[in-house]
Amino acid sequence: MNEALRLHQRLRGKISLRSKIDVADMKTLSLVYTPYVADVSRAIYNKRDLVYTLTSKWNNIAIISDGSRILGLGDLGAEAALPVMEGKSLLYKQFGDIDAYPLCLSTKDKDEIITIIKGITGSFAAINIEDIESPKCLEIVDALNLPIPVFHDDQHGTAAVVLAALINALDIVKKDIRDALIVIAGAGAAGYGIVNLLYYAGARNMIVIDSKGIITRHNREEKHKKRIGELTNLSSIEGSLIDAIDGADVFIGVSGKANLIDRSILKKMNEPIIFALSNPDPEIMPEDAKEARIVATGRSDYPNQINNLLVFPFLMRLVLDYRLRIDSELLLRYAHALADIKVEGSILPSIRDIDLNRIKDVLVG
Amino acid sequence: MNEALRLHQRLRGKISLRSKIDVADMKTLSLVYTPYVADVSRAIYNKRDLVYTLTSKWNNIAIISDGSRILGLGDLGAEAALPVMEGKSLLYKQFGDIDAYPLCLSTKDKDEIITIIKGITGSFAAINIEDIESPKCLEIVDALNLPIPVFHDDQHGTAAVVLAALINALDIVKKDIRDALIVIAGAGAAGYGIVNLLYYAGARNMIVIDSKGIITRHNREEKHKKRIGELTNLSSIEGSLIDAIDGADVFIGVSGKANLIDRSILKKMNEPIIFALSNPDPEIMPEDAKEARIVATGRSDYPNQINNLLVFPFLMRLVLDYRLRIDSELLLRYAHALADIKVEGSILPSIRDIDLNRIKDVLVG
Repeated sequence: MNEALRLHQRLRGKISLRSKIDVADMKTLSLVYTPYVADVSRAIYNKRDLVYTLTSKWNNIAIISDGSRILGLGDLGAEAALPVMEGKSLLYKQFGDIDAYPLCLSTKDKDEIITIIKGITGSFAAINIEDIESPKCLEIVDALNLPIPVFHDDQHGTAAVVLAALINALDIVKKDIRDALIVIAGAGAAGYGIVNLLYYAGARNMIVIDSKGIITRHNREEKHKKRIGELTNLSSIEGSLIDAIDGADVFIGVSGKANLIDRSILKKMNEPIIFALSNPDPEIMPEDAKEARIVATGRSDYPNQINNLLVFPFLMRLVLDYRLRIDSELLLRYAHALADIKVEGSILPSIRDIDLNRIKDVLVG
Repeated sequence: MNEALRLHQRLRGKISLRSKIDVADMKTLSLVYTPYVADVSRAIYNKRDLVYTLTSKWNNIAIISDGSRILGLGDLGAEAALPVMEGKSLLYKQFGDIDAYPLCLSTKDKDEIITIIKGITGSFAAINIEDIESPKCLEIVDALNLPIPVFHDDQHGTAAVVLAALINALDIVKKDIRDALIVIAGAGAAGYGIVNLLYYAGARNMIVIDSKGIITRHNREEKHKKRIGELTNLSSIEGSLIDAIDGADVFIGVSGKANLIDRSILKKMNEPIIFALSNPDPEIMPEDAKEARIVATGRSDYPNQINNLLVFPFLMRLVLDYRLRIDSELLLRYAHALADIKVEGSILPSIRDIDLNRIKDVLVG
């Protein structure tokens, strides 16, 4: 048995609940439960917002997955998603002191998932959508109109950390995001989120490729791909990666395809900035990308790691503390705050370099 | 501000999550999350039951309420239910070492609630239904056909503790449950659960009264009340409490009506056993029931407290540990095990007297 299995068997669950008060006597019991908890219920009924000061709601989020796109493994179902979501919960706790409850759904039906998420908002201050296949995940996030914020890590988290890295990478080569030709491979949740946020940040020269080739505003039916076509590819060029890459300044790979590009692609680019983010095997390995000016991956064993962990626990901490709305403006500010944490030899800080107070100042003043 | 409010404001949530492992370095991170947690997901995908040994599922239950019948307060909504469900979670933890996640639903629609409960079973080993109005709660429990056990405390927990108390009370007066005339006031979830379990235990001479009077097999439309009529009142008598009580051996009040009965009722009974269980104000106060042979209430400030707390954490502990099915046979066995814990001067033990190992022997041998 391998090390991860042994560890999980020993732990039998990476998280558990903790009581914040010992119910040691009848007096305490009467205060935390019947009859006197009724006073707390009545107070909240009379002034709904008191639920944020009298219960755990202020610090609770739900991590929702239907297990349809677990890591790079595809559709393995609710039970197989649980160890991943427990891991995510650990990270929320360790780095954001957030109570993140994994809810692994045994349905894959979009409307049922929407009903479930809408139905459970009573206990939670925010929702984290995780590892649901695209475009279903995007349709779900679009359809939710909740009284609490929704964070879709694959879409929002990835976009924020990519923008932060891009700000610093473009700074090194003295290029402007408004002019740079940015080629993005992959039009799932990550690609969609990146296009939206980069557009919001000023990027006007993007081209996106999916498995069928270059996306234009005319050649895709699916709503989110159509939207990608509208925000990118102003000249409506068609073709494949090779037709898009000529003179490109930036390549961002969120394609899920190992070794999608090679040196011949890099040679057509202009001072190439390469973000090869597919995990665990990137679109090009750093050792094969010597022609690039800057190379980043999602991996911790190479320089310039682009990792959502730099976003979700910290952004969510501030979202909960200041009851923030999660939108492009917030993600843009977060990306700038993250990019402002300069470290030697990398376009992004490591998790140990994060200073939540400094980020807070950028987000909420 | 009163004491309960002050305590809740200070705690700001009575429960929180706890990490069972410190994610102190990249090595640990890689084992509990990407990339190596993928091995755990694959193992569970290949053998679904491993989710019980490699994740927290084995000890997780969901406490589900829509806030439509919070304590005796009525419909106060999801947010106002949260402090009560957190209190319940504390008790599950304190007495059963169970991780009980409060899920307060913002919908009151029966079909949506069923969809939600069915959808979230991936993360949980059992479901606890709590404080949902009747008969909706009964219809929900009937409709759920889950791969995990469902415990409806108002129905199952109340029935088990009432049966345990009744076994010992009848033993004192040397009467047989099969002959005793048992009058039950209240035909909500508790009344329905009590009738079902007492019938299963052999009671054949029960009469049930709701706010419209005595229930027969012919005079009620609602499915669960009809069922009550079928299991009780063999002579199909009609009328009110006064018509039922003549010569009765036992009165069980789960009516929610303070002072429903008085001394004149007791005088018509035969060595009266009175369980006046409405909270906080019982159907008759013990000091007004001097004619009774045995009086029990739900209150801790009088002798013979009949409290669900004697059931739910311990029964659920055994249900989780031994993967038991929750049915009448299990509840009957539990009631006998509880009744077997004899203490001086009370028909039921206190929570400190519970010996889980002894109960286990009765339940699973």
